Amino acid sequence: MPPKAIVLCSGGLDSTTVLAIAREQGFRLYALTFDYGQRHAVELSAARRVAAAFSVERHVVVHCDLTVLGGSALTGSLKVPENRSLEEMRQEIPATYVPARNTIFLAYALAFAETEEACDIFIGANVIDYSGYPDCRPEYLKAFADMANLATKAAVQHKARYTIHAPLLYWHKAEIIRQGLSLGVDYSITHSCYNPQQELACGRCDSCYLRKKGFAEAGVADPTRYV
Amino acid sequence: MPPKAIVLCSGGLDSTTVLAIAREQGFRLYALTFDYGQRHAVELSAARRVAAAFSVERHVVVHCDLTVLGGSALTGSLKVPENRSLEEMRQEIPATYVPARNTIFLAYALAFAETEEACDIFIGANVIDYSGYPDCRPEYLKAFADMANLATKAAVQHKARYTIHAPLLYWHKAEIIRQGLSLGVDYSITHSCYNPQQELACGRCDSCYLRKKGFAEAGVADPTRYV
Repeated sequence: MPPKAIVLCSGGLDSTTVLAIAREQGFRLYALTFDYGQRHAVELSAARRVAAAFSVERHVVVHCDLTVLGGSALTGSLKVPENRSLEEMRQEIPATYVPARNTIFLAYALAFAETEEACDIFIGANVIDYSGYPDCRPEYLKAFADMANLATKAAVQHKARYTIHAPLLYWHKAEIIRQGLSLGVDYSITHSCYNPQQELACGRCDSCYLRKKGFAEAGVADPTRYV
Repeated sequence: MPPKAIVLCSGGLDSTTVLAIAREQGFRLYALTFDYGQRHAVELSAARRVAAAFSVERHVVVHCDLTVLGGSALTGSLKVPENRSLEEMRQEIPATYVPARNTIFLAYALAFAETEEACDIFIGANVIDYSGYPDCRPEYLKAFADMANLATKAAVQHKARYTIHAPLLYWHKAEIIRQGLSLGVDYSITHSCYNPQQELACGRCDSCYLRKKGFAEAGVADPTRYV
C-alpha cells in the first residue's frame, strides 16, 4: 500500500493545491480540518467540498475552541484589515495572526499521523507572498519536526521519523495556481476570504487581495465569486 | 507586577502540586484545563475545585476533541489496565498513552502564554514513577521549548523566550506529596483515577496504584475516597 499523508485542509486555495501535490506524489490522503471558532466558518463547507472532490480516505474535522484564548482578528473581536497593499502587509505581523495556531494544528496533525501510522504531514505554509506569520517559516517547521521525532510512541518505540512537507513554501501565488491547475484542481470550490458575506468573498481583505493578484499574474480567470 | 505562569491543571495530584510550586516561586497563576473527551470527566470538576482553591487569576477550560482521532484507553474503547505492578507498568508505553497529547496541551499553553504575555509554562511531567510516556521526557520538553521560541509573534517580534517548567520531573510520588503538603496543598480536592465510578476512585488503575503507593511511602494518610 502507498504511504499515508496527513494534509492540513482549510478549504482554501493553498491547502487544496497541497492535497493535489500529495496525491501526485503517490500518497493516500488523510485530510484534517479545524473548526476553531473562526469568523469565516464558510471555510468548513469549502473544506468538506474539497475533501469530497479528492475522495480522501478519511476527513477529520477537529473542534478546537481558540476563541477562549482571544488575541486575533480571525477569532476575536479585532477588525480584519482591508484594502492593504503588499508593502503594508509586509510591515508587521498581521492582526489575523492567531497565537500558536500552526503549532496547535500541527500538534493535532501529529496525533492523527500517529493514530494512522503515517509519517508525512503536509501544510500549505508560505513565506513569499505573506511572510508575516512566524509559524510559517522553514526554521519553525524544522523545529516542529525535531520535537515531533521525540514526542510520540511511534517515534520512540518504532523509530518513526516525521517529515513536515511544505511544498508551497517558496512559491508565489501565481506559481501555486499554475501548479494546481496542471494537477487538475478546480479552484471554484475553494474559499480564501477572511471576511465573507454569506458564500461570497469580500474582495478587500489581505487573503482576497493575494488570491486576485495570483490569478491575474498567472493569467488565468479567477473563479471566485466576490461581493 | 509578578510574572504570569501558565499551569496545565488536570485536577490531579501532580498538577495541583505544580500550581503550589509556581505560586511559591512568586508567579501569578493562569490555569489551563482540557476537556478532551476523556473517560474520567470527573477530572474537570476536580480541576475547577483546584483552580478555585488557588484563586487563580484566570482558568481556561479548552474543549478539544481527541476522541475523533482514537488510539487510547483514555479516549477510545481500549480497556484501562488494572492491578499492575510497577514492573509491569514500566515494560511498555501504556494503553493510556494518548497520541501527541502533551504536544497538543503544550501548544494550547503556548497560545495562552502568548495571549497573556507570559513566558513560563508549568507542566507536571514526571519520568520516575511512570516513565512510559515519551512526551514527558526532558529531551522532548527541551525540543518543545526550542520550537516555541520560533513559533510566536512574541518570540519573533519581542524576543520572548519560553521556559517549560517541569518541577516534578525527577521526583518520586512520595516526594511530590511531601512537597505539596509543605506548600499547603489539600489533596482531598484532587482526582487521579483513570476509571472512576461517580466521584470515587477505582483503586486498581495505574494512577490509583501510584497515588496510594505515594501516600504510603510519604507516611501520610491518603485522603482519596476509593470504591
